[in-house]
Amino acid sequence: MALGEFDLIRRFFTVQAVKHRSTILGIGDDCALLRCESDQELVITVDTLVEGVHFLHDVDPESLGHKALAVNLSDLAAMGAEPKWVTLALTLPHCDADWLQSFAKGFFTLAKRYEVELIGGDTTRGPLTITVQALGLTPRNHALRRSGACPGDLVYLTGELGAAGLGLKIRLGQTGIEDQGAFAHLERPEPRVDIGLKLRGLASSCIDVSDGLAADLGHILEACDVGATLYWERLPLSDGVHRYVAETDDWSMPLSAGDDYELCFTVPPTSREELERNLTAGGFPFALIGQIESQAGLRLSKEGRSIELSQNGYQHFSSD
Amino acid sequence: MALGEFDLIRRFFTVQAVKHRSTILGIGDDCALLRCESDQELVITVDTLVEGVHFLHDVDPESLGHKALAVNLSDLAAMGAEPKWVTLALTLPHCDADWLQSFAKGFFTLAKRYEVELIGGDTTRGPLTITVQALGLTPRNHALRRSGACPGDLVYLTGELGAAGLGLKIRLGQTGIEDQGAFAHLERPEPRVDIGLKLRGLASSCIDVSDGLAADLGHILEACDVGATLYWERLPLSDGVHRYVAETDDWSMPLSAGDDYELCFTVPPTSREELERNLTAGGFPFALIGQIESQAGLRLSKEGRSIELSQNGYQHFSSD
Repeated sequence: MALGEFDLIRRFFTVQAVKHRSTILGIGDDCALLRCESDQELVITVDTLVEGVHFLHDVDPESLGHKALAVNLSDLAAMGAEPKWVTLALTLPHCDADWLQSFAKGFFTLAKRYEVELIGGDTTRGPLTITVQALGLTPRNHALRRSGACPGDLVYLTGELGAAGLGLKIRLGQTGIEDQGAFAHLERPEPRVDIGLKLRGLASSCIDVSDGLAADLGHILEACDVGATLYWERLPLSDGVHRYVAETDDWSMPLSAGDDYELCFTVPPTSREELERNLTAGGFPFALIGQIESQAGLRLSKEGRSIELSQNGYQHFSSD
Repeated sequence: MALGEFDLIRRFFTVQAVKHRSTILGIGDDCALLRCESDQELVITVDTLVEGVHFLHDVDPESLGHKALAVNLSDLAAMGAEPKWVTLALTLPHCDADWLQSFAKGFFTLAKRYEVELIGGDTTRGPLTITVQALGLTPRNHALRRSGACPGDLVYLTGELGAAGLGLKIRLGQTGIEDQGAFAHLERPEPRVDIGLKLRGLASSCIDVSDGLAADLGHILEACDVGATLYWERLPLSDGVHRYVAETDDWSMPLSAGDDYELCFTVPPTSREELERNLTAGGFPFALIGQIESQAGLRLSKEGRSIELSQNGYQHFSSD
């Protein structure tokens, strides 16, 4: 990057609304300096988005700025963490002021909503690649994990399933279904931070659905050495996804498509009432979709039949 | 990435020697979990290396693994921080087991030397890009910064100047000078972590030399609203760099070439004796190269003349 370009980038990325008291030093030195407390745990995640792999070439830069942060906040949400700080490593093929301004708008609008402060970054010249690292806090010993689910626990999902997958199919011209809402799910996923905080002390395990429900619930089953049955009729499908499945009979799509960024979590039956009361009071969308079982494997109960699902994610996804 | 590839990558990157007691959860969940203490500060930096920009296409992957970590540890060193954790976001054009094994060897050999634990990462398909984020600790209020230098403070530099720049010129066939040592500086820079720790409480400011001494010392001068004079005769040039300057008269190269990853720091005269005693006792290479002055700007005293140097880094670097 030439120096004028650095100045331009600095202009867009150092103006931000959020500044935490526990940030001793933000952008502008070799490193950022943060203060943590002994009764807290620091929660860290990193995710990269690559052009042509994770987003299409003609993506709206404001949506991209949103999504690059959202997918990381979604990981923090899955641990029940409160987001606090973020670093941004941005590799750009060229320096386009309009593009940068839109990207920064999407990024900082979401950052402000969850009070996330940008504390550092690196801007380099190269193929468009965005790596965000997010840092959050939980009270000591209160983080949610993939492990912890026991046979008899109930399986829940936030929001709706398969809408992002449908949005991608529409974008790629693979279906004639019309569904504007599906684009929002694909391009502006809302991280379930507020729900994650409500799950502390109640959920026995939690994961965010980025690779598809079957794959991600599969990670929980693996970590806990258990199995599960999902109930087809209980899966929270949007109208568009219902129509897609009815037209194509591709019922596995909502189970295997990624990019939903909803939370899948398990709850012991004894906590069910408190959990449902809390989430309902907060106006949060959720559905009870299945049950943890001691028998290994992931099964789908659909129209009276039990179908074995692969846990291997969408790459190797297969039905009977 | 296909699943078999994920397994391969996991094989190379989850076998590591270092595991800190304060790591509650490392690789394998949505996030890592760390414990900090209230009497510490967390020090965070992020750097991206892009093929064709920061390293040549035919670079040895073991050296690349080393360097991707080293440039980040160098930032921690400049803050006087003790390195503890690192995340690695690796974007790969294809999955080559030999390449990955060599990269991991370079990365983990250095990580082990400084007891750095890999706690998370993301592997994606795309043009070769490596983003490392490093986390370290300092005792509360003991981090070194760019700000803090005062007129009268002495300017020091660790190691040698310009060797990496010479190494690049040799690699690119821009000079006939022979100097094997220059390649080591270019491709396997040694982060000055141990020296950074010794500077706590003694240095009034510190920065690592990644963009060239003139540019990086320029950042200190800007942060402190001061100027400085460097003494040409005191600059620690290697034999190869001496020969290069004698042959080409390009005396500005060692001042403007980047990638040295040495520390440039300032010390009040009252701390000079203690500093030099400590560094000498540790066997660390260092040189007193100049002095902070109240007059703004960066000057070079060379053969009795005073030459104004640009602070703008190697892109805009000019001499009189």
